[in-house]
Amino acid sequence: MTDRLQRLLASLLISVPVAAAADEGMWTFDNFPAAAVKQKYGVDVTPPWLDRVRLATVRLGGCSASFVSPDGLILTNHHCVSACLAQLSSAEQDRLKDGFLAGAREQELRCPTQTADVLMGIEDITAKVNAATQGMDDQAAGEARKRALTKIEQACEQAAGSQDPRRCESVKLYKGGQYFLYQYKRFQDVRIAFAPEAAIAAFGGDPDNFQFPRWCLDMALLRAYENGKPVKSPDFLRINWEGPAEREPVFVSGHPGSTDRLMTVAQLEALRASIPQWLLRSAELRGRYIQFAQGGAENARIVADPLTNLENGIKVRRKQLDALLDGTMMAKKAQSEADLRARAGLAGERDPWEQTAVAARRSLEISLPYSYLESAAGFNGTLFSHARTLVRAAAERPKPNDERLREFRDSALPLVEQHLLAAVPIYPEREEITMSLGFMRLRELLGPDHPLVVRLLRSTSPEALAAELVAKTRLGDTAYRRQLWEGGAAAIAATDDPMIRLAAAVDAEARAIRKRYEDEVEAPIDAAAERIAAARFAAYGTSLYPDATFTLRLNYGTVRGWEEGGQAVPPFTRLAGAFQRHTGADPFRLPDSWLEARERLDLQTKFNLSTDNDIVGGNSGSALINAQGEVVGLIFDGNIHSISGSYWFEPARNRSVAVHPAIMRAALTHVYDATALAGELGLR
Amino acid sequence: MTDRLQRLLASLLISVPVAAAADEGMWTFDNFPAAAVKQKYGVDVTPPWLDRVRLATVRLGGCSASFVSPDGLILTNHHCVSACLAQLSSAEQDRLKDGFLAGAREQELRCPTQTADVLMGIEDITAKVNAATQGMDDQAAGEARKRALTKIEQACEQAAGSQDPRRCESVKLYKGGQYFLYQYKRFQDVRIAFAPEAAIAAFGGDPDNFQFPRWCLDMALLRAYENGKPVKSPDFLRINWEGPAEREPVFVSGHPGSTDRLMTVAQLEALRASIPQWLLRSAELRGRYIQFAQGGAENARIVADPLTNLENGIKVRRKQLDALLDGTMMAKKAQSEADLRARAGLAGERDPWEQTAVAARRSLEISLPYSYLESAAGFNGTLFSHARTLVRAAAERPKPNDERLREFRDSALPLVEQHLLAAVPIYPEREEITMSLGFMRLRELLGPDHPLVVRLLRSTSPEALAAELVAKTRLGDTAYRRQLWEGGAAAIAATDDPMIRLAAAVDAEARAIRKRYEDEVEAPIDAAAERIAAARFAAYGTSLYPDATFTLRLNYGTVRGWEEGGQAVPPFTRLAGAFQRHTGADPFRLPDSWLEARERLDLQTKFNLSTDNDIVGGNSGSALINAQGEVVGLIFDGNIHSISGSYWFEPARNRSVAVHPAIMRAALTHVYDATALAGELGLR
Repeated sequence: MTDRLQRLLASLLISVPVAAAADEGMWTFDNFPAAAVKQKYGVDVTPPWLDRVRLATVRLGGCSASFVSPDGLILTNHHCVSACLAQLSSAEQDRLKDGFLAGAREQELRCPTQTADVLMGIEDITAKVNAATQGMDDQAAGEARKRALTKIEQACEQAAGSQDPRRCESVKLYKGGQYFLYQYKRFQDVRIAFAPEAAIAAFGGDPDNFQFPRWCLDMALLRAYENGKPVKSPDFLRINWEGPAEREPVFVSGHPGSTDRLMTVAQLEALRASIPQWLLRSAELRGRYIQFAQGGAENARIVADPLTNLENGIKVRRKQLDALLDGTMMAKKAQSEADLRARAGLAGERDPWEQTAVAARRSLEISLPYSYLESAAGFNGTLFSHARTLVRAAAERPKPNDERLREFRDSALPLVEQHLLAAVPIYPEREEITMSLGFMRLRELLGPDHPLVVRLLRSTSPEALAAELVAKTRLGDTAYRRQLWEGGAAAIAATDDPMIRLAAAVDAEARAIRKRYEDEVEAPIDAAAERIAAARFAAYGTSLYPDATFTLRLNYGTVRGWEEGGQAVPPFTRLAGAFQRHTGADPFRLPDSWLEARERLDLQTKFNLSTDNDIVGGNSGSALINAQGEVVGLIFDGNIHSISGSYWFEPARNRSVAVHPAIMRAALTHVYDATALAGELGLR
Repeated sequence: MTDRLQRLLASLLISVPVAAAADEGMWTFDNFPAAAVKQKYGVDVTPPWLDRVRLATVRLGGCSASFVSPDGLILTNHHCVSACLAQLSSAEQDRLKDGFLAGAREQELRCPTQTADVLMGIEDITAKVNAATQGMDDQAAGEARKRALTKIEQACEQAAGSQDPRRCESVKLYKGGQYFLYQYKRFQDVRIAFAPEAAIAAFGGDPDNFQFPRWCLDMALLRAYENGKPVKSPDFLRINWEGPAEREPVFVSGHPGSTDRLMTVAQLEALRASIPQWLLRSAELRGRYIQFAQGGAENARIVADPLTNLENGIKVRRKQLDALLDGTMMAKKAQSEADLRARAGLAGERDPWEQTAVAARRSLEISLPYSYLESAAGFNGTLFSHARTLVRAAAERPKPNDERLREFRDSALPLVEQHLLAAVPIYPEREEITMSLGFMRLRELLGPDHPLVVRLLRSTSPEALAAELVAKTRLGDTAYRRQLWEGGAAAIAATDDPMIRLAAAVDAEARAIRKRYEDEVEAPIDAAAERIAAARFAAYGTSLYPDATFTLRLNYGTVRGWEEGGQAVPPFTRLAGAFQRHTGADPFRLPDSWLEARERLDLQTKFNLSTDNDIVGGNSGSALINAQGEVVGLIFDGNIHSISGSYWFEPARNRSVAVHPAIMRAALTHVYDATALAGELGLR
């Protein structure tokens, strides 16, 4: 024992910087470390530079993007518009597979569920929020905080008025230490102007995902519209087609989705124990999609987009789990936590780390019913999702705004409605797959004797129940969804649509487990996080960046490769490599357009590049920006080591991966003859 | 930090018995704690009792069983003969689904790949093995040990002669502390006499697997033959049809497959990090099988047996992973290890725990290529398995016996040949599924640039390659396999069969990774395990049981339920419960035979029971035996808490699950009218 403890003690003495090391950090625009950048790279990041970049940066659903012309043209990744392309496809015309180019602006096609946000203002509301929860116990504070945030958002939107409407969103930073109000201008009419074939956008497919070297033209062009006209975007970023030099300082402005670097060790351990369930369910679904796709080209098309997303998610979660099972990194985490706890001196009954540990263990106890009932893994599918939206909206919308479930507050309703009523294809075959899998695992994991399982499957099988629900529901019909949406609670109560009846039948149990989660996990963790954040600021000063929350961040770094197994990985790839990698079989088959254009192309054209910027999912589509504020690349991925960036930053190996401007120029001018768009982007 | 360490120290002081607690333990017959049983339960376990039970206990491939009549009749689980039933089925006659009853002995059907072993003798060969490795470094010792074991086995079989042939197998106990030679009498002609429908054998299917209360008639009757005649089995165990009383002392004699209770913490951590890969691959295959089965009844039949096995494996591994992610139990494990290390005082350069930790980390580094190349996850399927057997046998059989890969030593060849040449159906559709999945994940996980992946998939896709190999190979033809087996190296070199060529093409890389594993993982761990085992004996005495190794063990316990969430779970279920649980939809649909027999049956008949015996997989089919040496149950499962038994025994909740004799009697006499078998078993 002594020996083991001695080694443990020794391991704790290895120095681990707690604050940002190397170029780590996803900084908010109001707390960017400009002085550090100036000192390290000699680059002036001035307030006007920051304002311009902020106003040029666009948030899409789950992705980032930027204005690249004065007429509302938006550059993002192909994989950020793949859902739109799939929605605009049919058995006759597969725009996801074959790509799309609008011959003229009038031919640009509206993406049915796409929106685009630009961040207009940031306000610190920590004091207001804390005032609303003063003196309350954790559960009451949790409730009061939600109400306060809704009220603050509502007041903000009302103040903006209808002339220049704003979407106001509260943001919790530092896992609960600070609250901010972010004001966005939102565009709800976003159209696709250009996307290449999926085969070149995601060349190498899942096997090459998160790998580098790489050859992906993962680009697309959208355009924001207002009142049927392209919007003016004077703060756009110009593309520098030559791209950056190796070691050149570069910036990434975008919306990293979610990191857990400030989680306590107990939270990370609970997270680690919960990931396998997600992975198992997703791997099984992957198998079902792949087997279904064997049934023919139309089957393959139907599952193409969800399969790609699923495979991406599986790789991310798999490597996240590997990271959390890495004893060395977890020991470092434990050490920095021990260091902070020692400095904080908060031991005792209300020790926030202990409080968090208790709540984290509770989260594990309820994670299965929470996933299967409230997160709807047990009823997985678009049709059920619509049914739940309709059932809950009918119950929530009549309530005062600040007493509703947060996703039905006034400011959220336009997007809810857009998603619910969009006329996009729903495939019964796919719905049957996801739903029968949901019922099967619901029964396996909650057990055949769980009262809800007994109610659902008393005299039928998961497969038969899913088939019947999908066949009999009318929710595939947009007009019927609209009728129920507008009819409200009376219409929901009156309909015998079986999917609505299912959603209504499971709602009480789903809400109950959500309430338990909010009271027993979220509320105590929020309360503890506030005290931990205060301790962290006291110990290390305020030059700390918050965890990613899919809000606007800026980071800095340089163009560079890394060392893998003793071998240098250079930071640039060139077009010749793509032709060498072409095997003729998906996903290593270049599209015909590129095979035919080969003679016209310079094979030395730079294709993809790697940088040491600290990014995560959500940064997809972000512009890579040089000191002059020009676009010198398009972030679309990280290398495999970047996935552990969810929990810590490894400066030696964590790299972002971007599309080089030179290959975008070659594509627009020599492969796709996108003359008008090329001209708009400053190419002759 | 101090605070955290203090809590760690405190946790280490909780008392955890290192030696067997409660009725924990899977004891070898030569070291059974008869005195402890006498003291606790007043039962005399005498040497004649042990001999008789040993000679009545049968080892099947992966399962246990026992003789229950003097004419070679063997009682085991339905799930232990499901492979046989599937092999004896076709599109026209589904014996797995519909069951089987031989009208007379002449109609009993030979199971093509089934064997049955009875343990005849045990010899301690530790000294001989140690003498062969004296003074060698770990790698040389590893090689020498394998050669020595093969020689000892060979000498044993030669000494037995051909009159009364023996199968001699060496066994490593205590993870390497002791070596034994086990002599078996083997029966290679085993026939199926009776099996009920799968729907009653595994009533509740995967959802109810590892659950209790339970209603499964998981029984089957085999018969061992020699020279075309039923064998005589004078040491059979009589069935006591009344079964045991609650709290009655009971014994389980059988072959627990594998436990890792003596693994070091470092080994358990490496194991924990390796399980997700297996789970992910298996979950994906599960999805593919389930989706394939949607294609119709014949599709469903083709994958029924492998799907059941896969689902069982997934549940086991999933709960094993949960166990290894349980911080409390791992902390206890760490504490008992620290205690032993402190007593052993072996710190220093050759500290066996450190040596094991280094090797365990190395095992993680090579686990992916090892799984995909040597364990053939990358080429998964029966056809490839046959191809590898043929390719390797051709290379190995000409070598001296003790220089071959161990699985091709003389004593192993009869079983290798039986499996290779059995005329059992191979389904191309299933082969394509497993093989294409193998290629896909081989490419994903070793990476598209791995030289072997490049070689295989330079101009094709995993799906196309699998389809081509399966379509073009002739290995589905038993006669062709025999021709290649008998033709040896020349025939293998000459054939252009693509599956043989594939197996030959990947063999060098597979062997190389196996050699690395043996040298860098197995050899140092074996060497360290010897010193750890010695330290354990020195510290705690010799009354320790070894980890399970699929060799004969006896354990004791009592008939009892447990408490689950504050509720008592009684130890017996009754037939009425099965009818209540019947929903009409698989897997909760009782077969027609039972629905029709309902009026003739006593609904109070006991069905399944639970006991606190310490069992794991491999014990399936074991007789539950009372003090008088009578069969009072048929082990077929454990409860969900039993799965953590791989790593530790939780006396409060770990339970085994058995079929009650009363339901077997009711089935034979009132449902299936198995008059002759019933008479042979002593029923009128």
